Amino acid sequence: MNDKDLLPSWSDGASKTAILEFVTSVTVPGASFVPPAERVATFDNDGTLWCEKPQYVQADFVFRRWRAMAEADPAKASEQPYKALAENGRAWLASLPGHVPDLVKGLSEAYEGITVGAFEQAVRQFFATATHPTLGLAYTKAGYRPMRELLAFLEARDFTAYICSGGGRDFIRPVSEQIYGIPRERVIGSATTLEYRDDDIYRTKDAEQPIDDGAGKPEHIWMRTGRKPLLAAGNADGDVPMLKTTRFAILIHHDDADREFAYDTGSEKALAEAKERGWTIVSMQNDFKVVFDP
Amino acid sequence: MNDKDLLPSWSDGASKTAILEFVTSVTVPGASFVPPAERVATFDNDGTLWCEKPQYVQADFVFRRWRAMAEADPAKASEQPYKALAENGRAWLASLPGHVPDLVKGLSEAYEGITVGAFEQAVRQFFATATHPTLGLAYTKAGYRPMRELLAFLEARDFTAYICSGGGRDFIRPVSEQIYGIPRERVIGSATTLEYRDDDIYRTKDAEQPIDDGAGKPEHIWMRTGRKPLLAAGNADGDVPMLKTTRFAILIHHDDADREFAYDTGSEKALAEAKERGWTIVSMQNDFKVVFDP
Repeated sequence: MNDKDLLPSWSDGASKTAILEFVTSVTVPGASFVPPAERVATFDNDGTLWCEKPQYVQADFVFRRWRAMAEADPAKASEQPYKALAENGRAWLASLPGHVPDLVKGLSEAYEGITVGAFEQAVRQFFATATHPTLGLAYTKAGYRPMRELLAFLEARDFTAYICSGGGRDFIRPVSEQIYGIPRERVIGSATTLEYRDDDIYRTKDAEQPIDDGAGKPEHIWMRTGRKPLLAAGNADGDVPMLKTTRFAILIHHDDADREFAYDTGSEKALAEAKERGWTIVSMQNDFKVVFDP
Repeated sequence: MNDKDLLPSWSDGASKTAILEFVTSVTVPGASFVPPAERVATFDNDGTLWCEKPQYVQADFVFRRWRAMAEADPAKASEQPYKALAENGRAWLASLPGHVPDLVKGLSEAYEGITVGAFEQAVRQFFATATHPTLGLAYTKAGYRPMRELLAFLEARDFTAYICSGGGRDFIRPVSEQIYGIPRERVIGSATTLEYRDDDIYRTKDAEQPIDDGAGKPEHIWMRTGRKPLLAAGNADGDVPMLKTTRFAILIHHDDADREFAYDTGSEKALAEAKERGWTIVSMQNDFKVVFDP
């Protein structure tokens, strides 16, 4: 099959051409050939592979938990942060200047002391029923179809693709295969620290350091793969360090208010770096024929 | 090829039979079948995959560095720990009750502030020339041949094998493919924390927590794979938590003073647990036809 036909949901244009040319340059024998073992591709998740507005999917998951905790314990219902968060979690999250660490911390505390297996069950239960608040889709359908095609295309060209999320590693793993065709061991993300006891593994209330965002992304990628990515894709300022360490950088630009959301907030530095460094800026409006599965 | 023929360096006996029966039980359709994606196997490195006596290979690497640092800086030559360690590193290591964290700390400090790429070069240089002090082998030949066969046999049965070492992850990665056929991204181990700056990744002087030893092993395995191992192999007390979380546990017993080394020190708890829990205890003397490549 022709390379071009493997990205049917991408419009013809500069972005698609740049991606195809780069993949060809490193996979066809020649001066810029890269052996398959070194073809590591890393993808941010929120806003790059699936929709992150009006709130992170994981925020919905945590807020539901906080509401349940407040309901189960009347004393908690009048206590902060449960009261404020349960009532107005989205605004609280948006108001935080560095919200990813707080979200990770909140998630860790909300599920403190349970086994990794019990946490996985809670995640599966969430994804089995929860839907996106405005798109009317199950969260498992909130992944961008063109990006799934890109993941599959790279795999077909002997790349190994990883998800590298500022969000929770163990929140994405249970559904990464189903949504993206990425097996759980190739999900890199932020996490709670773990505690082994009684022949099982328990979550603690502490966040593992570094968080997998900003400078933590290239660090996590090295920890997990022993490589710098050959290709990487992100959408926000927290992806800039990862995009700076890769050979081919893709920045997803959210400019499609009709089909998804249009926003530059939180991506100002990334957009400026992309222009300065010649990264491939993908316009969701112009480069994506469709955004979600029909 | 018959399963038995895939382990030619293993003597017929209870250990080989137990391994073959377990692998058959999870790979042949039936009640205990395990899908390939879930067939994770984890192997300790020092004393399980390669020789750890009379000192850890990595200790030789670090001690050489400390000696070089002391030689390069006359003030250091009379300063501790450089003086004591350069003169008598092996005895110092043996005298430490919990020596793995100290070794990791020492390694981190010895290579503080260089890029991960520069560290890899130093490791490659070491392995290109260094030889085992008593076996008369290059360190790259100090891996146990029967264990390499076991790794290859498991891969042939659609297991995914990982190295899970208390020693340094970034020390083993540059040679894991050459010695064991295990790609670098499947090496789990202790490490220094990393620092991203100037579009590159630098080593710090601090050890990443937890160390990949004892309780840290099942924690690291979950962090990296999102699974508990289906099969795991170790040789020392630091491997006990990993072996307790797996379905099929192998304990390498160093009882071959003629061909390798004979010692139970540091493995007392592991041997007791193995007997109590019915783990497969591999006698290097009786179960290995050969230990190293001829």
